[in-house]
Amino acid sequence: MFQDRIKELRLRWEKLQSKMKDEAAQGLLITSNVNLYYVSGRVFSGYAYLPAEGDPLFFVRRPVGLSGQGVVYVRKPEEIGEYFRQHGLTMPKALYLETDAISHNEYLRYEAIFHPETVLNGTALLRQARNLKTDWELAQIRRSGVLHTQVYETIPSLYRSGMTDIELSIEIERQSRLAGSLGLFRIFGQSMEIFMGSLLAGENADNPSPYDFAMGGAGQDPSLPVGGNGTPLREGMAVMVDMGGNFTGYTTDMSRVFSIGTLTDLAYRAHECSLSIQHEIERTARPGTPAKDLYNLAVEMAAEAGLADYFMGHTQKAGFVGHGIGIEINEGPVLAPRSKDVLTESMVFALEPKFVIPGVGAVGIENSFAVRKEGLEKLTLCEEKILSLK
Amino acid sequence: MFQDRIKELRLRWEKLQSKMKDEAAQGLLITSNVNLYYVSGRVFSGYAYLPAEGDPLFFVRRPVGLSGQGVVYVRKPEEIGEYFRQHGLTMPKALYLETDAISHNEYLRYEAIFHPETVLNGTALLRQARNLKTDWELAQIRRSGVLHTQVYETIPSLYRSGMTDIELSIEIERQSRLAGSLGLFRIFGQSMEIFMGSLLAGENADNPSPYDFAMGGAGQDPSLPVGGNGTPLREGMAVMVDMGGNFTGYTTDMSRVFSIGTLTDLAYRAHECSLSIQHEIERTARPGTPAKDLYNLAVEMAAEAGLADYFMGHTQKAGFVGHGIGIEINEGPVLAPRSKDVLTESMVFALEPKFVIPGVGAVGIENSFAVRKEGLEKLTLCEEKILSLK
Repeated sequence: MFQDRIKELRLRWEKLQSKMKDEAAQGLLITSNVNLYYVSGRVFSGYAYLPAEGDPLFFVRRPVGLSGQGVVYVRKPEEIGEYFRQHGLTMPKALYLETDAISHNEYLRYEAIFHPETVLNGTALLRQARNLKTDWELAQIRRSGVLHTQVYETIPSLYRSGMTDIELSIEIERQSRLAGSLGLFRIFGQSMEIFMGSLLAGENADNPSPYDFAMGGAGQDPSLPVGGNGTPLREGMAVMVDMGGNFTGYTTDMSRVFSIGTLTDLAYRAHECSLSIQHEIERTARPGTPAKDLYNLAVEMAAEAGLADYFMGHTQKAGFVGHGIGIEINEGPVLAPRSKDVLTESMVFALEPKFVIPGVGAVGIENSFAVRKEGLEKLTLCEEKILSLK
Repeated sequence: MFQDRIKELRLRWEKLQSKMKDEAAQGLLITSNVNLYYVSGRVFSGYAYLPAEGDPLFFVRRPVGLSGQGVVYVRKPEEIGEYFRQHGLTMPKALYLETDAISHNEYLRYEAIFHPETVLNGTALLRQARNLKTDWELAQIRRSGVLHTQVYETIPSLYRSGMTDIELSIEIERQSRLAGSLGLFRIFGQSMEIFMGSLLAGENADNPSPYDFAMGGAGQDPSLPVGGNGTPLREGMAVMVDMGGNFTGYTTDMSRVFSIGTLTDLAYRAHECSLSIQHEIERTARPGTPAKDLYNLAVEMAAEAGLADYFMGHTQKAGFVGHGIGIEINEGPVLAPRSKDVLTESMVFALEPKFVIPGVGAVGIENSFAVRKEGLEKLTLCEEKILSLK
């Protein structure tokens, strides 16, 4: 089970090592679950040490019984230092640590073990590497996209008249889990918390979020003020389903809009505008396109359609129209006005031009795309029109 | 919505301030969701600053539209420094920061804003305060316990012959959500990841965990190697249900065992031993009891029954028999051999003496208890026998 895809992992190690050599760094210490998964192929409790040259060491605390190249059991990180001394390994002078992820007290502990002259930002290094997916990773994301789509196709059959937003959400959550969703929704950074995604009906879509979301939702409790709030689904409401697609450890992101009966003309017009924005971005984006150009294109198209007031939120607006996806829901590239990201082959991102229409709810589209040599490949293929629920 | 329970919140602020004065500290900066919720009554994006004297300031980034005493909108933390200067507030010489929770890079940012002479561990301060629940918090936990119990009572009706562990888990997850579960499972520290809890059937209970769990389960994917693994439920298997009870922002923790048909005598005997351990701890624990004594009592009783090999895990053993609960699933006190915690009135903890029986699965009991003046109050009241599923 452990490191059973060594050729695949070596591609990742070499990507990291190439960057480490550019910065004249000798080592990278990895301690977060997502990055341990990235460099070892599984989550374990412990530490991975990747030198700039050669294969990594995996210092495992738990579970018992792992074996594989470079596996060393430890009870605490201080034993890594002892291992280095006993085996005559050179301590890194310039060491990458996950400084945007590890706590300050962990940082002090690792510093006391390695005594590096320089500490570099390993979080940024790993995130940059992870932005470019390997073929194996792309295959995982494609598989998530297929399963995600199958779940969304069941949504019309799950609706019952008289349901609340939460009740419909629960049936979609169940379908997702039956289709193999792991449930867990991984988010970079410590402040964002979401359960399995959100389903926003009617005015609740305009309840502002603690996060940089176009639409937030009040949630069910002040301890988790995001998403559905128990709104009964009623005639004339737009229902936006934006549930995560973590079926493989790699997630896709997709939103679809359903209507209870008929919506206002403004809502349909805004939805069409989202589809046009998506179409225009699909037509023009390719390796080399600056991510901010795509953001600007979307904002301009929304403004030209006279819909700027509603674009990417109404009471509170989000500052982006797309974001990278992978092991976490918020990777690079970011499609935002000041983004320095440039589309590169093998990036994967979610594009989500959306509108909040007062009195109706949220409309628009979200799909996941891979950047290929010739342009974008859509990974979440299902009906994009607003479907009426009966 | 924001700070609408100001009397309740003031109890918490004063508890923190009393400790701050003991340490001659002037301020506490709070930035994590759980602790923002604790001191403000809701999750928001931003920062709370609690001085050693007087009321806190809430520096809010999002959502828009919050109002209440001490609310100041900021776009970035550096504006907190500007606010202090503009309002002639004294910068704290000794400042508590959440040094076990904030990233190292965040730490550097806050240090540059406040220039404290001394930084103290605010994570420890807040966790210590949170270990002692207010009456309002106890009421939340009691309510979670009642709803949690109602969900567990439906389990026999959810079982269908031929189900896998995951399929049964999904039906329990759905019942939990319908009963008001927020779904989110909050865990202190960055390394532990769980979806809504775990359901472990048969031998899978003995698959060792990356975490300090008596029973782990292999999980469905190496990116989340914990819990159910698709085991078909078969005659002779024990099925342990250990699903979280976060119905109110405060969680209860409870496990119950079901059997498919009949289990071995050893399994029933071990289950009885768990109930005896629970009974003995209920009989003897009261304010003033050292938490480690309860651990030792449990270990001794398991050994006397000749069941030491199976107690708190078989292939891999957990190092505790109970843990505090509240906003997070792993608070204080910890019932472990080297714990320095002493039971104190208004603590709440889960007690989980469990066994892993090779070839059968996990048996034992877990309930949530509040420490009251006169002893323990059980908060999760439902059938404790092994129920046979049909």
